Amino acid sequence: MSKEKNLLVGQSGGPTVVINSSLAGVISSGIKNKEIEKVYGSLHGIQGVLKEEFVDLGEEFADNQPKIDRLKNTPSMYLGSCRYKLSSYDQDDTEYKEIFRIFAKYHIGYFFYIGGNDSMDTVDKLSSYGKKIGYDISIIGIPKTIDNDLVGMDHTPGFGSAAKYIASSVLEIAHDTYIYDTNSVTIVEIMGRNAGWLTAASALARNEYNLAPHLIYLPEKAFQVGQFMSDIRKQLEKRKHVIVAVSEGVKDQHGSYISAQSSEIDQFGHIMLSGTGKYLEVMVQSSVGCKVRSVELNVLQRSAAHLISLTDQQEAFLLGERAVEVALQGITGVMVALNRTSDQPYEVQFHTVPVQEVANLEKKVPLDWITPDGNDITEEMITYLNPLILGEGQIEYAKGIPCYLGKK
Amino acid sequence: MSKEKNLLVGQSGGPTVVINSSLAGVISSGIKNKEIEKVYGSLHGIQGVLKEEFVDLGEEFADNQPKIDRLKNTPSMYLGSCRYKLSSYDQDDTEYKEIFRIFAKYHIGYFFYIGGNDSMDTVDKLSSYGKKIGYDISIIGIPKTIDNDLVGMDHTPGFGSAAKYIASSVLEIAHDTYIYDTNSVTIVEIMGRNAGWLTAASALARNEYNLAPHLIYLPEKAFQVGQFMSDIRKQLEKRKHVIVAVSEGVKDQHGSYISAQSSEIDQFGHIMLSGTGKYLEVMVQSSVGCKVRSVELNVLQRSAAHLISLTDQQEAFLLGERAVEVALQGITGVMVALNRTSDQPYEVQFHTVPVQEVANLEKKVPLDWITPDGNDITEEMITYLNPLILGEGQIEYAKGIPCYLGKK
Repeated sequence: MSKEKNLLVGQSGGPTVVINSSLAGVISSGIKNKEIEKVYGSLHGIQGVLKEEFVDLGEEFADNQPKIDRLKNTPSMYLGSCRYKLSSYDQDDTEYKEIFRIFAKYHIGYFFYIGGNDSMDTVDKLSSYGKKIGYDISIIGIPKTIDNDLVGMDHTPGFGSAAKYIASSVLEIAHDTYIYDTNSVTIVEIMGRNAGWLTAASALARNEYNLAPHLIYLPEKAFQVGQFMSDIRKQLEKRKHVIVAVSEGVKDQHGSYISAQSSEIDQFGHIMLSGTGKYLEVMVQSSVGCKVRSVELNVLQRSAAHLISLTDQQEAFLLGERAVEVALQGITGVMVALNRTSDQPYEVQFHTVPVQEVANLEKKVPLDWITPDGNDITEEMITYLNPLILGEGQIEYAKGIPCYLGKK
Repeated sequence: MSKEKNLLVGQSGGPTVVINSSLAGVISSGIKNKEIEKVYGSLHGIQGVLKEEFVDLGEEFADNQPKIDRLKNTPSMYLGSCRYKLSSYDQDDTEYKEIFRIFAKYHIGYFFYIGGNDSMDTVDKLSSYGKKIGYDISIIGIPKTIDNDLVGMDHTPGFGSAAKYIASSVLEIAHDTYIYDTNSVTIVEIMGRNAGWLTAASALARNEYNLAPHLIYLPEKAFQVGQFMSDIRKQLEKRKHVIVAVSEGVKDQHGSYISAQSSEIDQFGHIMLSGTGKYLEVMVQSSVGCKVRSVELNVLQRSAAHLISLTDQQEAFLLGERAVEVALQGITGVMVALNRTSDQPYEVQFHTVPVQEVANLEKKVPLDWITPDGNDITEEMITYLNPLILGEGQIEYAKGIPCYLGKK
């Protein structure tokens, strides 16, 4: 076997606006480092490995800092993504054999996988299989997810930018709502099926003139429609315009999604047709009677790179660089991560976590960061969230819209 | 009667992100001008006049350029809004008498109303009544609407920023969509019940690597579900990911809203529960079968001031200033407006339009700016749209979110 050692990087799971910043960190560090010959990218994650769909990122990005900078500003996955779970190699090692045959063919000595808890499962299985067959490779996970639900670290790259988008949007929705002299209820539905971190971030919209969102509901606490209606009525006694932030994933005391309750209204497909916000809109409309509107903060939560958090972007890039350093030390089967050492001033340290401690697990909001009545979050949560959304990206615009990097 | 002449300004209708720029133009010009003693703002438009809910904007903004700048960046109506139509004074002049009594009480010699075609109806009626009773007042309309549907001018303030938001969002949605190696259809629903200008603006998302939106449907042409399905299928032969921009207001050949067709799926309230995008999503899902998603670009289209078009913002401000100049010339019953004199370089001239030529009318997209097959827009439309979204605002951020001006 030649001494040539090449690097391969892939992206997996759902989009964030900084997953390409981590990719840029890996590429940038990979190009600079003399122990690494070639820097390959796999298209569509592990699927691209199996299909040998590789691009030469070293060639594409060498001596091109402006292109690396544009990559850092580009949302979603530059290399494409996949949702692909490897079976256990104890049961069937066919794909593992194929993957390592291809690793060997391309002299891959370093493999980086940027993704969420499912992707960390892939890192875990591949590094474990590599050790088993004695193949000399460092396989490192780099975290990302807007949901902030990865264990073993203070927060995940991608979350801060989504939180910034959500807080800014809720403030803008508040301005949109306050103008009329009549009562209204506005329900903002925010992503997060099981973890309420993103919905909690709506609280960052509050400032010296805006108290919205006036009510916040996370999936960690059982959602009671009766209590919700009572909360709305109490708010309407205090103010004309009530703005509610609700997680798409709120569930009743039996663990059923509230959005699924819409099947109780009729039997003809409402489950498919309405989400949590729309369902609650109809409930409030029929029960309270004032003007009610629901707004679904859609995929732009995870894709609106023009509102990227600079803190988030920088951390994601540094995690990419850090992953290369770790790999060069011969370590495998770990995820690079961030620990917070101080809130004020905000300071983080990089560390690594054995990937089996991360894979397939979810970090939820601690119950004591939710107020006892279950309709708001506590000051600890604000202190935690605040630093993550700080700073704005340097987005270039051409012809009036953001300049991102795309494949033709 | 004292020679003191005061200014009053109000805002009306639905939000845009530059309606406060026009307000800032009026305030700024009103404060500077020695013929004007006091600069009042009416809260909630003409309703605030009837209730004498006035604020002293001269006092609030004098010698405070930073506050004026922040007002310019603030979305929606700083003074609040209303949707209030005056009856004809021939039928009932009670409210007119009251309004002019209050005008006289506050020595109002100049009244500015920033709004859309309904608001221009108010300007028309009040100025006509003022002439009839011989009250010396200049009543001037200042246009705004994201819909770009006011006649008598090249384009309306508020439209360019909404267009910029829509184009940027569609590009970001495209990045979000392109990542998977499987077929998908994404339907983006855009505001505009009768005029397709905003939906057309989605075409500005196209660049050297992105052809999305691949299909565009405006309300000006009858929408045929069969043709739509056929268009989608043809696109899926050419590419994996099809992105569709559709106006919320598309109608069938009988003029019925497509969104209302959802009543055909079941009889239990779908009209209320689903919009055009959601309805088409379900149709494509059942007919084509690949992954389908609909995204409703919600109220942020008109409220996301952090993506303000600098061109739009500057024009709105200048229209506010210009309105004060026109009023000081003793003119009444007109709307200030913009004419385009050149596309490249983009140049506009200010002019005035008699307000009765604007009130209650709608300017639709010319049919020859829509392609013959009805699923795209022409190059003329792009040439028209391009300059309107150019330039970015200078938005300040505090604690990671935009700084706007709000009332406590």
